[in-house]
Amino acid sequence: REALASGTVTMSARALRLIRDGQVAKGDPLQVARLAGILGAKQTSSLIPLCHQIPLSHVAVELVPVRRGYRIESRVRTSGQTGVEMEALTAVAVAALTLYDMLKAVDKGIVIGDVCLQEKTGGKSGTYRRPRVRSAKSEVRSRSGKVRSRT
Amino acid sequence: REALASGTVTMSARALRLIRDGQVAKGDPLQVARLAGILGAKQTSSLIPLCHQIPLSHVAVELVPVRRGYRIESRVRTSGQTGVEMEALTAVAVAALTLYDMLKAVDKGIVIGDVCLQEKTGGKSGTYRRPRVRSAKSEVRSRSGKVRSRT
Amino acid sequence: REALASGTVTMSARALRLIRDGQVAKGDPLQVARLAGILGAKQTSSLIPLCHQIPLSHVAVELVPVRRGYRIESRVRTSGQTGVEMEALTAVAVAALTLYDMLKAVDKGIVIGDVCLQEKTGGKSGTYRRPRVRSAKSEVRSRSGKVRSRT
Amino acid sequence: REALASGTVTMSARALRLIRDGQVAKGDPLQVARLAGILGAKQTSSLIPLCHQIPLSHVAVELVPVRRGYRIESRVRTSGQTGVEMEALTAVAVAALTLYDMLKAVDKGIVIGDVCLQEKTGGKSGTYRRPRVRSAKSEVRSRSGKVRSRT
Amino acid sequence: REALASGTVTMSARALRLIRDGQVAKGDPLQVARLAGILGAKQTSSLIPLCHQIPLSHVAVELVPVRRGYRIESRVRTSGQTGVEMEALTAVAVAALTLYDMLKAVDKGIVIGDVCLQEKTGGKSGTYRRPRVRSAKSEVRSRSGKVRSRT
Amino acid sequence: REALASGTVTMSARALRLIRDGQVAKGDPLQVARLAGILGAKQTSSLIPLCHQIPLSHVAVELVPVRRGYRIESRVRTSGQTGVEMEALTAVAVAALTLYDMLKAVDKGIVIGDVCLQEKTGGKSGTYRRPRVRSAKSEVRSRSGKVRSRT
Repeated sequence: REALASGTVTMSARALRLIRDGQVAKGDPLQVARLAGILGAKQTSSLIPLCHQIPLSHVAVELVPVRRGYRIESRVRTSGQTGVEMEALTAVAVAALTLYDMLKAVDKGIVIGDVCLQEKTGGKSGTYRRPRVRSAKSEVRSRSGKVRSRT
Repeated sequence: REALASGTVTMSARALRLIRDGQVAKGDPLQVARLAGILGAKQTSSLIPLCHQIPLSHVAVELVPVRRGYRIESRVRTSGQTGVEMEALTAVAVAALTLYDMLKAVDKGIVIGDVCLQEKTGGKSGTYRRPRVRSAKSEVRSRSGKVRSRT
Repeated sequence: REALASGTVTMSARALRLIRDGQVAKGDPLQVARLAGILGAKQTSSLIPLCHQIPLSHVAVELVPVRRGYRIESRVRTSGQTGVEMEALTAVAVAALTLYDMLKAVDKGIVIGDVCLQEKTGGKSGTYRRPRVRSAKSEVRSRSGKVRSRT
Repeated sequence: REALASGTVTMSARALRLIRDGQVAKGDPLQVARLAGILGAKQTSSLIPLCHQIPLSHVAVELVPVRRGYRIESRVRTSGQTGVEMEALTAVAVAALTLYDMLKAVDKGIVIGDVCLQEKTGGKSGTYRRPRVRSAKSEVRSRSGKVRSRT
Repeated sequence: REALASGTVTMSARALRLIRDGQVAKGDPLQVARLAGILGAKQTSSLIPLCHQIPLSHVAVELVPVRRGYRIESRVRTSGQTGVEMEALTAVAVAALTLYDMLKAVDKGIVIGDVCLQEKTGGKSGTYRRPRVRSAKSEVRSRSGKVRSRT
Repeated sequence: REALASGTVTMSARALRLIRDGQVAKGDPLQVARLAGILGAKQTSSLIPLCHQIPLSHVAVELVPVRRGYRIESRVRTSGQTGVEMEALTAVAVAALTLYDMLKAVDKGIVIGDVCLQEKTGGKSGTYRRPRVRSAKSEVRSRSGKVRSRT
């Protein structure tokens, strides 16, 4: 069973430049956020009240540069019988919060957005794959647009 | 010292109806999310690697119905010398993840967005108040637009 | 494997009235206690030194009004090979402590009592069902008496 | 600021004998319970949802043999501005649960009772001292009776 | 699957004497260290970022007096598919740190050393057994020497 | 108040080469160990039973290459009234365990050693500075020797 979640962190050009130039005072924000996300996934059941503790067999968090910030993706796997979408979403959220923390000295306007499930197999509800909507709902379109622009 | 953070959880009409009709199988999602957010704020320093543990004197989390979901706001106070924006942001993120968890059986398309700092006093960086941008940057506009529509 | 534990929280008439009238300042004590109990069950192995971490498949906590307070019951299930009585007892204790916390502003005389195992299946020791004693041991009798008065 | 809480653990004669003879397989139950109580006090804010984290300056847990089991007392102190009754009560409850855990192989009928606040100074609500009732309320009388019998 | 790790805590003659005479003010350091090690093993996955949570079926920690202090050994078992060497090593380290903590009032020169894996079965990497080197590398020799002197 | 602790991680030439060539499969071991140490310092009071929670104002962990591995140093500061040597020692131990974890696939013979306090100000016991012994006690000499060789 596996779940893939994603989210974006939108920041100022100045914050982006600092990351890319390796000039963030507290250390490499991408490394720290990646690790925090992995650790966060393991804390899911103590953060989300009705989430059971699940032994995870794989947690990966990646931060991919996008136009105005970073896209965070987390893939989580378990050999257990339950779905792990909450673990993947928590990893994304904690990585995103950590990115904010590393950069808050230079940009307090950072926005975490589009945190959602992309794919999921296993669990009671079976397989889920996020549709790439093209409908009139502008907000949804802009989201999937951002996703597509990455590939 | 105080910080106010906010975020939105966008969901399907069906999920919204279930909440408003008190029909969510696992319990009242708003109550559970509110508590999870408060507990989450207290776990900030164990989630965010470079965040120090701060004794908090007040944590409040509110969920306000908006057009396509809920807006979450968290206000955190400390008598200590450090800013508490990370605690407020973490409360919002954990409350939002919990809302997703309570509703994932009926809507896996839920999106957590616009998680950001609204106001902050104290800490090294002094006071911050989020500007309500009206600029050409469409994404930013739609965000602040959503915020305005609430008031 | 399953375990059922219970306990009682005895409080003043004034505290009881505040709960029933929905007038407790900090929120709905029964909701908060229920959730705290569920979260508490998941922390059992970090609270009880020689308790192993067990993946739980079900945790329920219920608060039932009795004559002078509330009776708390917790039912915990695991698909693992170990008994889960400690998880059920911990859920009851944490829910009871939380009820106290929600009401301590109006009643510091609240007493948590009769925390015990009711039933248990699985684990090394097999099935257990609490006897409903009627013996001369007054304390035991009053306890089981209170239990019976509920049904 | 200081708080003193207490509780009792009632057990079978066989369980009592095992403790007193140092024959409990898992180790010395009193030592383990004492430590678990101290550690438990430090986890109060992550167990009780609306409890703030308080820096404690002193936590003591004592187990005193009484006629049919043990009386547990916990004294907690802080230099902070908040009351610490929840920390003292949590220490008692966790010590009691641990005592159960150490003995559950020989006695599943153990009952944790009379967990309550004895004294408290500081905090918003000022000083509290538990009255030693002698009234007709039998349950309360037996409780304070047990306390007195100890001195 | 099982792992056995060990380490040493070297201390002053005065500190040793206090332990052996049962005169350490804070309690029995060996008991407290043993329990802390067991609890520490259960926290491994929240301490070591890339370590998964593993359901442990057995954790033992022993402190054996050696010439200038104590040798700590931890044996950990799981029924899961992963190796548990990190859990055994964490138990040793936490027990050693706790021993330091119990004695730091009388000896701040205490040194924790030789923390290493002795044996391990299971996990991807199969069985491991620490070689008892006799080579010219003086440091390694002194280590295995100390081990041998115990048997 | 401040404390400085240190320790060493001794490893095979092959493990060292992998780190220096950036070839460790799981990521950069030095970065991960550094962060784990910082996070570990914040968990000290939940690991060491009789350690109080102390609000830390600064935690730094550094890994310095030495001849046969890495020397880890941690400096911790608090504005509180208590010493923070346990926090500094815990940071070193957790960083060292993490380094082991990152490299265990290629070297299970890694040894964590010489974990000790270097300096400390504040707390009940006042200032401490580790003496650089030159005595006949070979083990102590080799330790301080390793330290000196670094400067």
